[in-house]
Amino acid sequence: MTGFNNNVSTKFPKHLTPKGPDGPELLEAERAKASFNIQAVSKFMYGEQVLEKMQNVARVLESEPAFEKTQRYYQGRPERIAHAYEKDKRLIELTKEMNWDQNDRRIAQTWYDQSTPYTLHYGMFLPTLEGQCNEEQRKLFLEPALRHEIIGCYAQTELGHGSNVQGLETTATYIPETNEFDLHSPHLTSSKWWIGGLGKTANYAIVMARLVIHGKDYGPHPFCVQIRSLEDHRPLPGITVGDIGPKFGYATTDNGFLLFDHYRIPHISFLAKFSQVKSGSGEYVKPPNARLSYGTMVFVRANIVNGSKMALARGATVAVRYSAVRKQFVDAAQPSKWNNQVIETPVIDYTMQQYRLFTVIADIYALHFTGREMFKLYDLNMAEMKKGNFNLLADVHSSSSGLKSLTTTMAVEGIEQCRRACGGHGYSLFSGLGQFYQDYLPNVTFEGDNYVLTQQTARYLLKTFRNVVAGKAQASEHNLTINYLTQYMQNPKATCPATSSTDFLNPEVLISAFGFRTAFGIAQVAEDLDRNGRSWNDVLVDVARISKAHCQYMIVRWFFSGLQGATELAAPERKVLQTLAYLFALHTLEAEMSEFLMSGYLSPAQGKLVKEQVLELIARIRPDAVALVDALALPDYYLASALGRYDGKVYQSLAEMVEREPLNHTIVVDGYENYIKPFVYAGLERKKESKL
Amino acid sequence: MTGFNNNVSTKFPKHLTPKGPDGPELLEAERAKASFNIQAVSKFMYGEQVLEKMQNVARVLESEPAFEKTQRYYQGRPERIAHAYEKDKRLIELTKEMNWDQNDRRIAQTWYDQSTPYTLHYGMFLPTLEGQCNEEQRKLFLEPALRHEIIGCYAQTELGHGSNVQGLETTATYIPETNEFDLHSPHLTSSKWWIGGLGKTANYAIVMARLVIHGKDYGPHPFCVQIRSLEDHRPLPGITVGDIGPKFGYATTDNGFLLFDHYRIPHISFLAKFSQVKSGSGEYVKPPNARLSYGTMVFVRANIVNGSKMALARGATVAVRYSAVRKQFVDAAQPSKWNNQVIETPVIDYTMQQYRLFTVIADIYALHFTGREMFKLYDLNMAEMKKGNFNLLADVHSSSSGLKSLTTTMAVEGIEQCRRACGGHGYSLFSGLGQFYQDYLPNVTFEGDNYVLTQQTARYLLKTFRNVVAGKAQASEHNLTINYLTQYMQNPKATCPATSSTDFLNPEVLISAFGFRTAFGIAQVAEDLDRNGRSWNDVLVDVARISKAHCQYMIVRWFFSGLQGATELAAPERKVLQTLAYLFALHTLEAEMSEFLMSGYLSPAQGKLVKEQVLELIARIRPDAVALVDALALPDYYLASALGRYDGKVYQSLAEMVEREPLNHTIVVDGYENYIKPFVYAGLERKKESKL
Repeated sequence: MTGFNNNVSTKFPKHLTPKGPDGPELLEAERAKASFNIQAVSKFMYGEQVLEKMQNVARVLESEPAFEKTQRYYQGRPERIAHAYEKDKRLIELTKEMNWDQNDRRIAQTWYDQSTPYTLHYGMFLPTLEGQCNEEQRKLFLEPALRHEIIGCYAQTELGHGSNVQGLETTATYIPETNEFDLHSPHLTSSKWWIGGLGKTANYAIVMARLVIHGKDYGPHPFCVQIRSLEDHRPLPGITVGDIGPKFGYATTDNGFLLFDHYRIPHISFLAKFSQVKSGSGEYVKPPNARLSYGTMVFVRANIVNGSKMALARGATVAVRYSAVRKQFVDAAQPSKWNNQVIETPVIDYTMQQYRLFTVIADIYALHFTGREMFKLYDLNMAEMKKGNFNLLADVHSSSSGLKSLTTTMAVEGIEQCRRACGGHGYSLFSGLGQFYQDYLPNVTFEGDNYVLTQQTARYLLKTFRNVVAGKAQASEHNLTINYLTQYMQNPKATCPATSSTDFLNPEVLISAFGFRTAFGIAQVAEDLDRNGRSWNDVLVDVARISKAHCQYMIVRWFFSGLQGATELAAPERKVLQTLAYLFALHTLEAEMSEFLMSGYLSPAQGKLVKEQVLELIARIRPDAVALVDALALPDYYLASALGRYDGKVYQSLAEMVEREPLNHTIVVDGYENYIKPFVYAGLERKKESKL
Repeated sequence: MTGFNNNVSTKFPKHLTPKGPDGPELLEAERAKASFNIQAVSKFMYGEQVLEKMQNVARVLESEPAFEKTQRYYQGRPERIAHAYEKDKRLIELTKEMNWDQNDRRIAQTWYDQSTPYTLHYGMFLPTLEGQCNEEQRKLFLEPALRHEIIGCYAQTELGHGSNVQGLETTATYIPETNEFDLHSPHLTSSKWWIGGLGKTANYAIVMARLVIHGKDYGPHPFCVQIRSLEDHRPLPGITVGDIGPKFGYATTDNGFLLFDHYRIPHISFLAKFSQVKSGSGEYVKPPNARLSYGTMVFVRANIVNGSKMALARGATVAVRYSAVRKQFVDAAQPSKWNNQVIETPVIDYTMQQYRLFTVIADIYALHFTGREMFKLYDLNMAEMKKGNFNLLADVHSSSSGLKSLTTTMAVEGIEQCRRACGGHGYSLFSGLGQFYQDYLPNVTFEGDNYVLTQQTARYLLKTFRNVVAGKAQASEHNLTINYLTQYMQNPKATCPATSSTDFLNPEVLISAFGFRTAFGIAQVAEDLDRNGRSWNDVLVDVARISKAHCQYMIVRWFFSGLQGATELAAPERKVLQTLAYLFALHTLEAEMSEFLMSGYLSPAQGKLVKEQVLELIARIRPDAVALVDALALPDYYLASALGRYDGKVYQSLAEMVEREPLNHTIVVDGYENYIKPFVYAGLERKKESKL
């Protein structure tokens, strides 16, 4: 570059403003329309105390340099990882400084909104040690881990095995002579893979390896293994470890691989709270009832269901607010007006947009009640199990499998639906929905692939069905599966009594319909398996369908029963949530219409009534749409979105974020000299010559 | 770091191999099973000449440093843009050196698989100049542009206006005194936005601006405007221009913004092939028949439909091959064997996986025939229009709108379905499906938002319906819409004659079913609008549905008619394609079952037969699955995927790609000293003290 300063940032002319009416005015008008008290719904959702924590933590993080987000959208992976370490350390300090409890810290992680190298230390390493250490091991591993003197990860998945844990290849062979285990990776596919925090960070790992004693294979067991030196962080001899490279999302996590070459670990490494290997003899002592661990899985999944709700909440908050600000086309038949002037129609007024977004709002509130009910059932079941009663476990566990599958799928689809509803700007990372979609997406695969999980649910449903048919199932207020199956068996030719579209605004009508459709599907699969000679593999497509049907039944049922039990709600708040409950049930019914029709429970004429009622409900939600996302109480710091800001300053915010783009900090781009200029100058030469 | 060399790359132990049977053996076995000649189907799809070009171009690019892809997954945006400029220049040189024609160059772009700064120069700037310049302007703009002496972009979309072109805010006011136009951006929302190649590259832009003459607004018109200096690439005075920042995908494109502050451009800038502004007087001369440009749109959309096919082809190639290599769980009821030993089941043998993937294979071949038919209709229509016959235009144009909408949505869903079918490794960028999904995704929004487009199709369908009812529509062999509507009107209570699942293996049965369902839907919307007093906005949800139904009808119809006309196909190839045609029709019918049932044309019992037949067809495709993706002839260079390699060396390839990850080129990660070591060393101190 000759003679001018290239390091000049491009700025937008400060005098320019968006063509009015502008976002703040439009959102204010929306909020004025609400039929209910926003704050009251927020309190109902989170409780006053948590709501306060949510706001406090956001305020703290906003002014913490280690937690700043303004550079996130421009940075490459190495810069983002470096920044993530800074945040991980600062969070440890902040927790002390602010005297934060676990809830505060979890909220901070949520608002920061990025999995980082220490995430799995908290999420898997500590809980595993907590659950599987004997007293000696608690001192040796758990206590230093709580002080971050050792940093761990959880190494289960291998290059060749994910879903099938029983197929893991890594071996841990007991050596009686030295009272050690020999950890070994016999194949390339035995390499541990995808392990969060392992790539560059962890110095310890919980390693799931096949326990082999005297030539006998006892299957996968957990070992706590040091993998890097505490002196200089180098991998220990016999260990190959590194990062597995870039992913779709999760840029700030160092997912890693790990191979053992006959790596010896001491006897104490075998986590021995449940099963044991006796020193010297190598005698194996079996764990007690393995079913206890299924109880914990319900808790993990209830958290995932809650996460689905929060993910949808984020998508909807951005898309609904932006749809109230973004205007496109004048609707000649029903023109929008502002101060008596015709303006372009805010896109939230198009019924297609309403259909896309308000159904997501209904999903959010539905999942709120689902999550709550799951936590309740978890507590109830754990209490019963402690008394030695395992009656609830199978039902709770199988529902939790299917619900993890269904709700994470709903969330992924809903987020993307919201992003697309933002039109072109939805593709800008400044929408706040791009990286978020990527980071959320693995939920449909991890903690049990969403298709594989449906098999667990379906196996239980089929078993219960056979018990009901054989008269061996006992009705129980907490086992809804037996209830709807029994009802179906009493009248497998039942039909829906609704004769008008308003007849569907009745919880009993809807719950019966969802129950019948599910039972019908289960009965069909049972017939295929038990009478038509089909194998399990032959019916996998229908297996996924009945799991989904069952879970939709649960969500519908819990939405209505949850509302009924929510006596703290005042009339206006109850009314809008009731409308959402109907909308959830009916838009779900509409989406799954073919199964309801195929079961014979609904007629095509009733199907048409359902469609009509969905549109009625959507129109009823319209004035409350912005208020309903406001009630979700997600702070701007969390959203990190130009489109979804509470104040509606969409275009000003986009302009500010564009000014931060590194490409705009020089006038002439790298590459101009070598790759553009030669062609352009050839043209200038040609012009000069032609003038001569 | 003290005392050791930190710059050591992590390598996998070379002696380790995957647990067998390995990918190459498994894929070889798959290929041996094929019922048809792979090469024959490839030739049928592309033609021998194009197929040869596809292979030749891939060979050339593989050894070109400017086209190398091995670093792509690790690079941040600035590095990728710099590399993109290098590639843009090299492609210009290669085209000359290799004497490539337009087809070769397009194939090179496809295989390179990244939109780059010059992409819009070729894709929009040149074609617009080609179409809209008068003779003088061709010399002034087009000729230097063809020599890359000027680099252009196409600036239409604004910050506040995308879909609604008529709402653009930028003005071009004619100044008779100087015979100039005054280009101006009155608001922040008037800023041009999203313009590919504008951010840092283009020195010219086609600017769509409202033409204002003597205070009268003539709406948006195209101007060819210099925006950067040819001497030093600096923006010219009066212009604010820059990059709009990071996006979900399209990292190598410098999408830009552009604001004018009363920027004067000469009279010649107004592209004057069609409309004109007379110098001095400012008299405006209207363009001739605007309908001609609709013809071109059909061509653009036929290309997008073809692109949908190729996108699905890529997803399916990766997922199907990897599913034949990846093994998970032993199916106790039907164990897989290899050399008489039980092995874990390759996931391609699970029916759920087959259902997810083989339906995508059917979609690919369906869209092949759709694209071909659209190009044919485009030619036919252009020929007719030249003769002054505009009869075909409305039908062709409206179908092309809906087909763009439907097929790009199918492609996005299909790619993601394929990616998820790859399990955990589908999230690694090394799958080749992550960045690809991001780059493909905007297809559902650009060139007409997929929801907005359905309105164009539906308006035409409703108009045609009203004409058919009024007896004013003329049947024509090329107007299938009139055909199925007429058939429906003759018997709106018709029902499907199928009584067994094999009865559905009949093109006429299927085409009639799709036609009836579409006509029924159109009739319902017409009734809502014309009799039930609904507004257009009230029926938008159903508008999207009837557009989709119409387009599915077209695809089914063209698949069967295309096969019938493909006399060059030998029996085995014809047979497998026929199976795919049935699978396409029936899995689509299954997915849309509720509409078929609601129309009364199909009964629940018939619905069950359809479900059964889909599973039958999927089983029939099983032995040909790998061969069917091989026939799509996508080179490894294009796929850039460890999972989808032709040779099946999945795990070795993942290991190689991991070794290239920059984080693995040092032993101890940046950040260790400041953020990890302090905690760990505190622990070491504690230990030392406790020992004292």
